[in-house]
Amino acid sequence: MAYQFLNSINSPADIRTLPIPDLCILAEEIRAMLLIEVSKHGGHLAPSLGAVELALALHYVYDTPNDKLIWDVGHQSYAHKIITGRRDRFASLRQFGGISGFPRISESPYDTVSAGHASTSISVGLGIAMARDIAGEKHDVVSVIGDGSLSGGLAFEGLNNLGSSNTRMTVVVNDNKMSISKNVGALSRYLTRVITDRRFNKIKNEVWELLGNMSHVGKGIRSLVHNVDETLKRFVIPGKLFEDLGLQYLGPVDGHNIAEMIEVFQFVKSSLNVPVLVHVITQKGKGYSFAEMDSTKFHGVPSFTLSTGDMSATAPSAPKYSDVFGATLCECARVNKNIVAITAAMPDGTGLSKFRDEFPTRFFDVGIAESHAITFAAGLALGGRRPVVALYSSFVQRTFDQLVHDVALDSLPVILCIDRAGIVGDDGPTHHGMFDLSFLRAIPNLVMMAPRNENDLKAMIHTALAHNGPVCIRYPRGSGTGEPIAETPALIPIGHPLQTHDGTDAVLVSIGDWHKTAIIVREKLSSRNLSLCIVDARFAKPLNRDFYADLFNKFSHVITLESNNISAGFGSAVAEIAADISPSKPIRQLRIGLPDAFIAHGDPAKVLPTLGLDADSIVEKIEKFLKA
Amino acid sequence: MAYQFLNSINSPADIRTLPIPDLCILAEEIRAMLLIEVSKHGGHLAPSLGAVELALALHYVYDTPNDKLIWDVGHQSYAHKIITGRRDRFASLRQFGGISGFPRISESPYDTVSAGHASTSISVGLGIAMARDIAGEKHDVVSVIGDGSLSGGLAFEGLNNLGSSNTRMTVVVNDNKMSISKNVGALSRYLTRVITDRRFNKIKNEVWELLGNMSHVGKGIRSLVHNVDETLKRFVIPGKLFEDLGLQYLGPVDGHNIAEMIEVFQFVKSSLNVPVLVHVITQKGKGYSFAEMDSTKFHGVPSFTLSTGDMSATAPSAPKYSDVFGATLCECARVNKNIVAITAAMPDGTGLSKFRDEFPTRFFDVGIAESHAITFAAGLALGGRRPVVALYSSFVQRTFDQLVHDVALDSLPVILCIDRAGIVGDDGPTHHGMFDLSFLRAIPNLVMMAPRNENDLKAMIHTALAHNGPVCIRYPRGSGTGEPIAETPALIPIGHPLQTHDGTDAVLVSIGDWHKTAIIVREKLSSRNLSLCIVDARFAKPLNRDFYADLFNKFSHVITLESNNISAGFGSAVAEIAADISPSKPIRQLRIGLPDAFIAHGDPAKVLPTLGLDADSIVEKIEKFLKA
Repeated sequence: MAYQFLNSINSPADIRTLPIPDLCILAEEIRAMLLIEVSKHGGHLAPSLGAVELALALHYVYDTPNDKLIWDVGHQSYAHKIITGRRDRFASLRQFGGISGFPRISESPYDTVSAGHASTSISVGLGIAMARDIAGEKHDVVSVIGDGSLSGGLAFEGLNNLGSSNTRMTVVVNDNKMSISKNVGALSRYLTRVITDRRFNKIKNEVWELLGNMSHVGKGIRSLVHNVDETLKRFVIPGKLFEDLGLQYLGPVDGHNIAEMIEVFQFVKSSLNVPVLVHVITQKGKGYSFAEMDSTKFHGVPSFTLSTGDMSATAPSAPKYSDVFGATLCECARVNKNIVAITAAMPDGTGLSKFRDEFPTRFFDVGIAESHAITFAAGLALGGRRPVVALYSSFVQRTFDQLVHDVALDSLPVILCIDRAGIVGDDGPTHHGMFDLSFLRAIPNLVMMAPRNENDLKAMIHTALAHNGPVCIRYPRGSGTGEPIAETPALIPIGHPLQTHDGTDAVLVSIGDWHKTAIIVREKLSSRNLSLCIVDARFAKPLNRDFYADLFNKFSHVITLESNNISAGFGSAVAEIAADISPSKPIRQLRIGLPDAFIAHGDPAKVLPTLGLDADSIVEKIEKFLKA
Repeated sequence: MAYQFLNSINSPADIRTLPIPDLCILAEEIRAMLLIEVSKHGGHLAPSLGAVELALALHYVYDTPNDKLIWDVGHQSYAHKIITGRRDRFASLRQFGGISGFPRISESPYDTVSAGHASTSISVGLGIAMARDIAGEKHDVVSVIGDGSLSGGLAFEGLNNLGSSNTRMTVVVNDNKMSISKNVGALSRYLTRVITDRRFNKIKNEVWELLGNMSHVGKGIRSLVHNVDETLKRFVIPGKLFEDLGLQYLGPVDGHNIAEMIEVFQFVKSSLNVPVLVHVITQKGKGYSFAEMDSTKFHGVPSFTLSTGDMSATAPSAPKYSDVFGATLCECARVNKNIVAITAAMPDGTGLSKFRDEFPTRFFDVGIAESHAITFAAGLALGGRRPVVALYSSFVQRTFDQLVHDVALDSLPVILCIDRAGIVGDDGPTHHGMFDLSFLRAIPNLVMMAPRNENDLKAMIHTALAHNGPVCIRYPRGSGTGEPIAETPALIPIGHPLQTHDGTDAVLVSIGDWHKTAIIVREKLSSRNLSLCIVDARFAKPLNRDFYADLFNKFSHVITLESNNISAGFGSAVAEIAADISPSKPIRQLRIGLPDAFIAHGDPAKVLPTLGLDADSIVEKIEKFLKA
């Protein structure tokens, strides 16, 4: 496509020579490229559309990459990527072998830090700023963080440390009133009031005018002063909250007005040697009417038709796990009035939006605050409710201590439904849910399940609700197997696996949705005259001792299969029980699962073969193992 | 001891009948009991001395246990314990079989939640309040949190959710300017300014007086108004920050004035149906001059002499691990100017205070904010520094995602020194460091070591500094073995264990300081004609394949020994490598370590036998294993 300016922008240096009117045209060209490319393969559209002018203004004023620019989460950084030498590779965004959808140190010197999870940018930026101070260097550090990410405790810890540090660093709050869903929380409300509350000025003027009419000030004024003091508490002085935390506040600034932003950033860069917070107002989805109207829908998108905004709805072969979770929980909640649901800014992604609509007083979206979600749920359980928390696996990583200290210690009946476990695809290493089986099975009192299909997910939710203690259920992103879903599922005895397929040469114990791979592998091996018994483990914790003892008596070759790091994962649990049971004859075990390494982004169909985890590679491994 | 009032206080109901002057005497009696009992066996003295009047005022006003009272961390809750039916058991505090040093649900209906880690009380309290609202109940919920705990991100997540909730709940900030060490952070500074800043009132009065002298208000007033607006930003309106976050602020209140506190709490209880924050000022160590003068020293104490404040210094048999860590890091930092050190409110406990004193510009205490400590360290590493973070094992539980996402993803050279790993004793289940080997070995790129003695700790610190990637070193609370410490330690090849003792019948692979138990066990078995080879694993990750392959060839019986949960721990790592190596002959493994359960508080010498983990019990287990 013939762009007037974009084709000649090979680095931010090329931007700094452009007059401001041309930058405005460039912004529109970047938007056009964003829309065209993201419409083809999907991506984080609305956040990146909102941050085009911001990216231009920052790179215009700051001497990147010498000055350090940090994007929190990074899903708003597409314009940044396009103007920092990745324009020609932008069409490969999020695809296997292509550029990442998030900042990656390995990809560009302009990506100061790698990201993907929210709320880290202030802490890591402060570290870089302090390193600079110690080294006597002079470059700037600018962290751009969305108002949604500010609700995360880590962001507050960073602000709290920054505000008392007296170092030169700038936090840009990209305030679009939206993280993934509508933002919640007192700080978010505060930011809105900063922009909209005119009452402070009104009341203040009234007081001044009243005073102006008094020629003498006597005792009366004292009580008036007191009243104003009380009154002031209720009104917003722009940015006072951040000033109280030790940051100099500038704003609000129009985040689509390049000239205004350049002026502000130039002032900050030239004149302020302290922690600064610049409050920039942007519109998520800016410039694309469908995304402006429904920025939640257009937050992260699959491919879509540019002219209509229609998303390619390749009819799903089977219901999504998240939909089955949402529907099942609603069914249960109609009967059990104690059930409440909690999520952390993921009501749509986790399938809880139906629950929210049907049971608004029993639903809690706490914003990006996963740790709080768990401890809050512990409180709900102590108060006699039956809390069900839904989070993505990669964000459960932020709740380990809360699960240990606030839930498991007293064995509180909190249910944690872990979506997006295993390989998630395009979002890559920060989003693969590949550690939960490992770290969760270290927690005492916890029951840990994984369904092989959507029917078992329903049964496990019922089972969890019937269990008086903490339970985790992990399942993958995307669709189930098409298994019919029982209306009234049978409860599953805690710890009990299920043998699903007979076999004589060896047993393959799979956990979770990779059971479907196990079946394919079994068929392929059968054509090689190898007979594989298949067991669906269903539980990563506890493991039923008698069942496994029987298994080890029947088979001398055990293969485990899991969509989790093989380090400390499910295969490791089977190795433990094999050691403990100490069967009468020797057992050999082959552990198949995700490697102990960070795994690249891309279509799982392309990623898995590189890991030796497609069905054919697994067949080869097993055959070699059995014939060794 | 004959107390005038205390002996008849069997529950808070007995307090509510006392006139206020008698409550003041009761407070002194409680202090006397606290001092007498804690001086005998140790405990968290200074925090609990500071919260005596606060506990009385709260139980006086609130209808506990129907109203829910929550103590953050809980180390300030001794007075609460004494007046809620545990007076007669108070002498057993923190001792094996006695009452816990922290609130425990299992111990009393007045302990609303169990605690031990900081910053949880607002989140869990909000959960309880929401459960109450859904159930249509009416009781109050009061969370008492120290100003130090407010720096934790979880506390902010809770406040942020509470402030937008419109529910009836009270947060009492117990502001003593101290958590464990001196508090840091912008919020802590803000609280100090609320109390001390008189400038706001001064400037405001000057403006009013100026205005009073003007008979007409014209254009000039407009610019004046603007100036005041700017000026206001710099002054503190008491509690405005919390008001901006949606909480009604009351304070500051004198936390040693029972009458004043009762008045405030009665007003809150009778009149306010919204989230409230009551700012109470207390003195840590109140009423005991030695503790008032040095509240850090008297935060957590061993037994001491009441009349002098002298702590029983049973001459340590060997240097403490934390001292060796601190001294080694100072030595290295004198040579390597890039080394910086970070802790999270544990400079004394971790042994970093010497580093702080010698290298003040290279030392960072970020306050109670463990997650930030890690991400901040990642930033320092990106900025070319060599960050070493020191945390207790139980608090590393709050950093899992930061280690994955901010450190390991890019394999940044951050060193994490994990103190208090294993059984810690009197602090009990929330403080035992028994999960780190499990959850950390799930993280790719991480090297995980544990020294068998203080000499090896030094060698491991040197080894970590020579390794270009993330490293964890875990070691126990307390003293080493007395091993002489080499001046210039040899670096340890990454992943390599060390055979320390010959043997022929079986091999025992121990990790970390339990090596000394292994030696005792070996000697005891030798007298039973069993010859045990001892290997010090040194690494939980990675494991050197060739070394372990040799081991499995030599021995058919392998015993693993660790002070970590056996679920997913070191023994599990050995089971994994045994499966992967698939030795030519069958291997039997006995996994010895901490049970997959929460472990009670008390002297390890008393706790370990109950777990079958004293040397004699281990000898029995091994003999049975070898003779099976």
